[in-house]
Amino acid sequence: MPRAVVLLSGGLDSTTALAVARSAGYQCHALTVRYGQHHAVELDAAARVAKALEAAEHRVVSVDLSTLAASALTTGGTIPKNRSLAEIGAPGDVPPTYVPARNTVLLSLALAWAETLEARDIYLGVNVLDASGYPDCRPEFVRAFESLAQVATRAGNIRVHAPLIELTKAQIIELGRSLGVDYAMTHSCYDPVGDRACGRCDACALRRKGFFEAGVPDPTRY
Amino acid sequence: MPRAVVLLSGGLDSTTALAVARSAGYQCHALTVRYGQHHAVELDAAARVAKALEAAEHRVVSVDLSTLAASALTTGGTIPKNRSLAEIGAPGDVPPTYVPARNTVLLSLALAWAETLEARDIYLGVNVLDASGYPDCRPEFVRAFESLAQVATRAGNIRVHAPLIELTKAQIIELGRSLGVDYAMTHSCYDPVGDRACGRCDACALRRKGFFEAGVPDPTRY
Repeated sequence: MPRAVVLLSGGLDSTTALAVARSAGYQCHALTVRYGQHHAVELDAAARVAKALEAAEHRVVSVDLSTLAASALTTGGTIPKNRSLAEIGAPGDVPPTYVPARNTVLLSLALAWAETLEARDIYLGVNVLDASGYPDCRPEFVRAFESLAQVATRAGNIRVHAPLIELTKAQIIELGRSLGVDYAMTHSCYDPVGDRACGRCDACALRRKGFFEAGVPDPTRY
Repeated sequence: MPRAVVLLSGGLDSTTALAVARSAGYQCHALTVRYGQHHAVELDAAARVAKALEAAEHRVVSVDLSTLAASALTTGGTIPKNRSLAEIGAPGDVPPTYVPARNTVLLSLALAWAETLEARDIYLGVNVLDASGYPDCRPEFVRAFESLAQVATRAGNIRVHAPLIELTKAQIIELGRSLGVDYAMTHSCYDPVGDRACGRCDACALRRKGFFEAGVPDPTRY
């Protein structure tokens, strides 16, 4: 089986990306990056998901972005709550939960591991619909990183897969369920209390919308 | 003064890049990344250089590449010694000191800080002549990262400067001296003993060649 590196936060999207990579026949090497944001509940979720979806291995690497990348997720600040779906991802709006260059950092670490493993495939769960308007979740970002990877490594020939990029949250959930994903083990909330999701941040709002539109009971514990 | 982020290892090249950025009128924010390779002597050199060249600030950030990126510098293994200048950087040769995706990781962290600082300029000291044949030191790599940076960030409009990229080591030393750099404070060796350079690794060989060809006394302590 060919190897793939899969970026795994333990959230709904990256869990689905892992399920897609697995169903495509890859031996999956799951990578979780602690960048200053992680609550223990997220790391627990990533570990659960990696095990349930039979990743070949799961590594957790730390990089302290809080010293470099100002964001409500890394350096403190107010996480927006109770925003309407019209507000979330409105054109031109980049909310304070955006972490500068986060996905570039995550993909660069995935690339380092992929080159070491002689894996040619990297999966990540970004999506541009039902998302928060982060610049590094757009198709042009993924394509630009893939172009970079060709010249940044010895062998080149690296593919960056973002299989969810043009799916709605409901479509992502439907895709995951068709692949046997149990979303009860995932965690999306930006501001959990213990293992309970807040239910009011943008991540919770988009997740709830997804389950509602997919007509699937929401297994999240609020 | 506009701000620039300058990647600073404390070696000859990155020190010169910092001097160039400073002479171009930037307020320089120096970034040293500990990725599993650093000896204390390198961090000391970076701190000395940042101070001597009047960086506005100097930050040191750790990311443990040794768990992801196999290399003689990060995970152990034999550092080549006593190689001829013909062997070092021979076409197609990538030595075991190559760290997979290292410069992609370094630039991604520099990009995160640049976006936070609202700096539009990033400097790094890579060069393709008198170098070890690493893929991520080539002009096409620098251009590809600059293209990525346009779409990876909110505002785009980021420039990645590699002012040494087509200079020989001797030309780099001449440039630095014209800008007042004292190379005695820099450290290049891959395998130092205490604060002494080994004199036999590829980094030492290229450095010695540079001072020889520039007709400048080599201030390195071997």
